Amino acid sequence: MKILFKNAKILDLDSKEGIFKGNVVVEDDTIINVSQQIKEDNYDKVIDVNGNILMPGFVDTHCHSPMTILRGIKDDAPLDEWLFNNVIPCENKLTSEDIYWGEKLAVLEYLSAGITCIEEGYFDNEAIYRALKECNFRARIGFGPTTRDVGVDNLTYLKNESEIIKETDLIKKVCFVHSIYTTNEEQISQCVDFTAKNNIPRSIHLSETLKEVGDCTVKNNQKTPPMYLEDLGFFDRQTLCYHCVHMDKDDLQILSDYNVSVSTCPSSNIKLASGIAPIYAMQNKGINITIGTDGVASNNSLDMFKEMFLVATLSKVNIYDASVVSARDVLKMATINGAKALGFNVGEIKVGKKADIILVDINKPHYYPQTNLLSHLVYAGKSSDVYLTMVNGKILYENGEFFIGEDKETIYKKVNEIRERITK
Amino acid sequence: MKILFKNAKILDLDSKEGIFKGNVVVEDDTIINVSQQIKEDNYDKVIDVNGNILMPGFVDTHCHSPMTILRGIKDDAPLDEWLFNNVIPCENKLTSEDIYWGEKLAVLEYLSAGITCIEEGYFDNEAIYRALKECNFRARIGFGPTTRDVGVDNLTYLKNESEIIKETDLIKKVCFVHSIYTTNEEQISQCVDFTAKNNIPRSIHLSETLKEVGDCTVKNNQKTPPMYLEDLGFFDRQTLCYHCVHMDKDDLQILSDYNVSVSTCPSSNIKLASGIAPIYAMQNKGINITIGTDGVASNNSLDMFKEMFLVATLSKVNIYDASVVSARDVLKMATINGAKALGFNVGEIKVGKKADIILVDINKPHYYPQTNLLSHLVYAGKSSDVYLTMVNGKILYENGEFFIGEDKETIYKKVNEIRERITK
Repeated sequence: MKILFKNAKILDLDSKEGIFKGNVVVEDDTIINVSQQIKEDNYDKVIDVNGNILMPGFVDTHCHSPMTILRGIKDDAPLDEWLFNNVIPCENKLTSEDIYWGEKLAVLEYLSAGITCIEEGYFDNEAIYRALKECNFRARIGFGPTTRDVGVDNLTYLKNESEIIKETDLIKKVCFVHSIYTTNEEQISQCVDFTAKNNIPRSIHLSETLKEVGDCTVKNNQKTPPMYLEDLGFFDRQTLCYHCVHMDKDDLQILSDYNVSVSTCPSSNIKLASGIAPIYAMQNKGINITIGTDGVASNNSLDMFKEMFLVATLSKVNIYDASVVSARDVLKMATINGAKALGFNVGEIKVGKKADIILVDINKPHYYPQTNLLSHLVYAGKSSDVYLTMVNGKILYENGEFFIGEDKETIYKKVNEIRERITK
Repeated sequence: MKILFKNAKILDLDSKEGIFKGNVVVEDDTIINVSQQIKEDNYDKVIDVNGNILMPGFVDTHCHSPMTILRGIKDDAPLDEWLFNNVIPCENKLTSEDIYWGEKLAVLEYLSAGITCIEEGYFDNEAIYRALKECNFRARIGFGPTTRDVGVDNLTYLKNESEIIKETDLIKKVCFVHSIYTTNEEQISQCVDFTAKNNIPRSIHLSETLKEVGDCTVKNNQKTPPMYLEDLGFFDRQTLCYHCVHMDKDDLQILSDYNVSVSTCPSSNIKLASGIAPIYAMQNKGINITIGTDGVASNNSLDMFKEMFLVATLSKVNIYDASVVSARDVLKMATINGAKALGFNVGEIKVGKKADIILVDINKPHYYPQTNLLSHLVYAGKSSDVYLTMVNGKILYENGEFFIGEDKETIYKKVNEIRERITK
């Protein structure tokens, strides 16, 4: 299968302009040509991009996808009431089948918003794996222990959970230790050993709230969460940390020393009143910064345009300097940096990259005057401007229609029923 | 002309649920019936809303619309470089005709985003008035002096400028004193006198940056901007203040005492690194809080969905409390509170209100499960979900097409040409 995208404005964040006019050829799952001249060939399909933007799909590095089912549940409540009296009681009622449908609803939302790759972290990976595989969606899936798994034989648990996720071109696995406050030291150490022996990367929620940091320092002889994890050897192989809101210079230095990647989740952090992450300081430490949506229970949408706008603007207001963290910086975070953190060969429109591609309609008022397109994408763009989403060479979304083997109306009906049942 | 909207979910922020199923009848420019039963009648047009949301159009209480022409100009630069080396030199090249086209581009964006009413503040009101009138758009237009008018006879200036704006059902006027740092005391006092004599309300940029507050207190014997204006009698009639970011309790008390309305502009405030406004404290003082986009030079889009999300979430993170400033609160700010501040009989779907109505498509992944719709509007909604916009009983936008008497392609072409010319 050979597809030509012609007459596009192609995003190239390594170039001075950031965007150039050209054409892209995809063969099967791979980008095989990017050029200003149209390459003559026999194409199975020719897509005229009509001068719109062609860019890599977004990589969302922190999600709890099935929580789409809980969208909007008890918003505007104090954290404890939201979490312990609403979210968790509902989650306890979720069946494997519910999680499967919640995952599929999330895939609809990802695709319609131009997200082509995620880092997934939830429970019941059999259901999640099945849903993602059926959709032909790209993900690194997390497995690992939480408080509810204290008492079970952790090593057997890890082995079994790891085996559920069969790695393919589209699916990878990561050991996701939920957090230092929902696991104990033994569990974390066993994960460190298991992942070292089996060559598996690691992820964790880290320093998300002031409470987490405070509790950790009190309990662990003044060690902050990064100091605590460093002592357990957690960072000694490829690691991605979610949130990283409350971090001082020493904490950031640890992440920098071990080449840890960060997934910043600004809309979740401000909606839950957790805080604003020190992105500019992370940049100065050379940390690989990526962006996550954190799932819709806390956000409440899966929208990297919203997150990009927030990463740039919150970073500015956080230190009263409008010049820090540029549109180009956040576009990198949302694409190539995310791909790097998750270990997928995507995130750029370059020959040899896997074909995760989106088309962005710029023939709308908010893209005019049509100059400064990088700026327009980040500061004026909306996820709804995405009109075509391709994952691994397959078009999974185009103009409101999805091609994931399941009718969207079926998914909508199912999640409505599930929500009604679990909130009864 | 009689139009029936049937089968709608109607926003009603006074009710417990916030939304009810019903039907709305518009005759000419007015809502004449809102009911759960369809009223039998001879309708000129019947619109099936298909279970989507029908709600009042948004009232954007602070805009510099023609600055659409400057979208994305020198983003991510320090404020002084952005303003003095880029924005102002370009503005100095704008002709009356350029401003006319910039206003029209803004109207396209307002309509596509469900904004039906604005408070306008820019120079060359002849061009602005002409553009808005041709579009059938609703606005309160500001006139008033800035630094560039120091030296001209202010009273003659005010009289002439005021006369340009002929009030109609759709157009009102307001005396817009740009700010305390771009006008002098004599100009402000003359505006106070002029508006008192001519029964005209007042607007001003207020306490937007720390610099403004600091400079004011140094220059005026420790008086903050609200204290300074109070002494000049500025608040003794209907007043709207834009921004109000840096305000202490005493400042807020002054606004509260005089029933001053506030236009908060969160995306502008964070992108320009001005700060985060104390919205929760304003609520506690009973201040009428409204929302503004501040125009695209600093924002960079005209999107009340973005602003609503930010008002709620920034207010939460600002005081580390997720329970303050709810979805319902911000929906009120964006509709009825704005209408009240500007003095238009709009902002609610009630009998007798002028028909400024939008339809929001909720048959999209980010509105599922279809519960908690107020929350979904604010925390998951996008301006692109608006598919029909009616102003004063006339449909001006539907499914990507505009009905403002001017072809959108003509406007796009014009603003591209203007931008190229002024940045040469």
